[in-house]
Amino acid sequence: MNELLFRASTEVVVREDLEAKLKKGAKLRIKYGIDPTGDRIHLGHAATIRKLKHFQDAGHQVVLIVGSFTGQIGDASDKDSERTILTKEEVQANMANYETLLAKIFDIDSAEIHYNHEWFNDMSLDEWLRINQLFSLAQMIERDNFSKRFERGDRIGLQEMQYPMLQGYDSVAVRADVEIGGNDQLFNLLAGRNIQKAYDQEPQNIISYELLLADDGRKMSKSWANCIWIDDEPADMFGKVMSINDDLIMHYFKLVTEVSDDEMTKLEKDLKTNNPRDVKLRLAEEIVSIYHDETSAASAKEAWLSQFSDKKLPATIPDFVVDNQQQNLVDLIVAVELADNKSEAKRLIEQGGVRINSHKVDSEMVNVNDGDVLQVGKRKFVRIKTK
Amino acid sequence: MNELLFRASTEVVVREDLEAKLKKGAKLRIKYGIDPTGDRIHLGHAATIRKLKHFQDAGHQVVLIVGSFTGQIGDASDKDSERTILTKEEVQANMANYETLLAKIFDIDSAEIHYNHEWFNDMSLDEWLRINQLFSLAQMIERDNFSKRFERGDRIGLQEMQYPMLQGYDSVAVRADVEIGGNDQLFNLLAGRNIQKAYDQEPQNIISYELLLADDGRKMSKSWANCIWIDDEPADMFGKVMSINDDLIMHYFKLVTEVSDDEMTKLEKDLKTNNPRDVKLRLAEEIVSIYHDETSAASAKEAWLSQFSDKKLPATIPDFVVDNQQQNLVDLIVAVELADNKSEAKRLIEQGGVRINSHKVDSEMVNVNDGDVLQVGKRKFVRIKTK
Repeated sequence: MNELLFRASTEVVVREDLEAKLKKGAKLRIKYGIDPTGDRIHLGHAATIRKLKHFQDAGHQVVLIVGSFTGQIGDASDKDSERTILTKEEVQANMANYETLLAKIFDIDSAEIHYNHEWFNDMSLDEWLRINQLFSLAQMIERDNFSKRFERGDRIGLQEMQYPMLQGYDSVAVRADVEIGGNDQLFNLLAGRNIQKAYDQEPQNIISYELLLADDGRKMSKSWANCIWIDDEPADMFGKVMSINDDLIMHYFKLVTEVSDDEMTKLEKDLKTNNPRDVKLRLAEEIVSIYHDETSAASAKEAWLSQFSDKKLPATIPDFVVDNQQQNLVDLIVAVELADNKSEAKRLIEQGGVRINSHKVDSEMVNVNDGDVLQVGKRKFVRIKTK
Repeated sequence: MNELLFRASTEVVVREDLEAKLKKGAKLRIKYGIDPTGDRIHLGHAATIRKLKHFQDAGHQVVLIVGSFTGQIGDASDKDSERTILTKEEVQANMANYETLLAKIFDIDSAEIHYNHEWFNDMSLDEWLRINQLFSLAQMIERDNFSKRFERGDRIGLQEMQYPMLQGYDSVAVRADVEIGGNDQLFNLLAGRNIQKAYDQEPQNIISYELLLADDGRKMSKSWANCIWIDDEPADMFGKVMSINDDLIMHYFKLVTEVSDDEMTKLEKDLKTNNPRDVKLRLAEEIVSIYHDETSAASAKEAWLSQFSDKKLPATIPDFVVDNQQQNLVDLIVAVELADNKSEAKRLIEQGGVRINSHKVDSEMVNVNDGDVLQVGKRKFVRIKTK
């Protein structure tokens, strides 16, 4: 079981200490904090959240902190710019869907769930300033993302510098034994140790994990709009996984799936000797199985093969009725909802991503006939109907 | 009257605005904050505090803020290093004597007095973080004393960076129209304007004043142990003023006394043509008159002239009875309380500041006779008595 707990970890603080506790079989309180600034979960976050399931399987107590208070400020850890403060209402709205999604990943019913306004609403300013005293300006500035922004001359709001202390105090409030998080959380996780010591608590152990990369080579993040969401429809999820670069295949196996280390070694060998596409098909099927089920995964695979591999169109394509055969291409793409707005439509056309009956089109006006298939990108289709 | 309000000012924000209000004769709320980390007031602080009297004389309302909350953290404005947090009890003890001293400078009975724990004890963390959001890290670091410490690699506690915002919020709490302070307070005074705007209040006007220099050329400060205290005994105060460098004489006239601008011009001329000592005697007499009275000032002057100028000994010298004529000089100086400890005594001897019957002594052992006068520095005397 420890194989999965530590897989893809980047830092373990203090490893000897944590391993000894796991060996002793003590029931540990495993803290994980959620920043409810979005209402969806992508595969990157889910990779870390799945560790909670593995801790549960090993008999530990999951303690979930919903950043109902901190979420109003926003964590700058994974941000390159300042974030605006959310209202309590926005935080609550985000959380509603979020909990349903979490339940897909681990047993949320047996987890303790705390909203951190429980303790921060009553925190005195006096106590808060004493917590501030535990940290120095230099420590804060040395944080990688702060120092970069500082050097660039970008604004860093003072409230952002308070965030690690808020997250750190959460560990005091729930008496965490272990806190886990993405590698970009390391500073915040360590802050917890510092503050717990000041409150005469044994400092928590920490495991930070690798961040999942997206097909654009950047880390998967809402901010970059490069996410595979765990509630993406099977076909969409399957297709997105099939779009990742071949050199990310093993990275995804390690972070997202539970394929054993031994099997990963085999797959890595396969990648070198066989067609990487086949290993990627296996990956996509694994991932869709986790977040949907094996049947959906199998159909998604079949659909994908039929559409892309065999160069066939998908089985079902929605119809769109036009009044006139003469169409402005940009307006048409927006009207059939294959783009959100005109500027996106223009960009898609310029990038050569728009086809009619498999032929690229980039003229301002186009002639369409009944039955023509308008395609945007690899996976979006609409069949044109004339009156 | 405005002559004294603006005399020795370094910044007036916004001058046109403030001058217009003063002209209109509106009753303004003049805020002044006291950081109760000491229990005495030196001439430098008093120079600024006396402005409150001038504002009172012009019909305005003095609003005194006792930093009962902020004083627990400590303002870093005039500090080159981090300060430890005071307890509430220490703050209270300091304030008791402080108020008596303030009453010597302005009419404290007609002033509003607020202790800022009144509002900070009830401040929610949420509201506090929203105030933090108004300031950026860069703004804080650019402060002269922070940037110097930062460059030296000295620790700056995060609680110190919260101080300007605390002081700034005080202005919101009392709806200040004007805040005054020493020039090293400028950043904190401006913070008040920023926060008042966020609370939809008209931002306060600001007057910052020159800092008084001590005879060692540094600004007068408890930290440098170079203070003339307003409760120093007349003779001591007189003597300390007579010790300042000649080139500080006009600086003291401007900052500490209320001698008119016209008269200062005359005094400055006198300084060049006559003996500076005579101008300094006038200065010392002015200052002692302010903090004691004219009679004490006149006697202090007479005593000083008789002792130093006429090379006579003071009229009264305390006796000290020794057992033995053979004395260890260091031990003797400590025993007669002309030095606090042996290392100070040694230093005084090495610097040639110790005399017996007007002759310098620096040997380890000395022979003393009944009636000998032991002198340390210029103004400390003890008459030796043998049994």
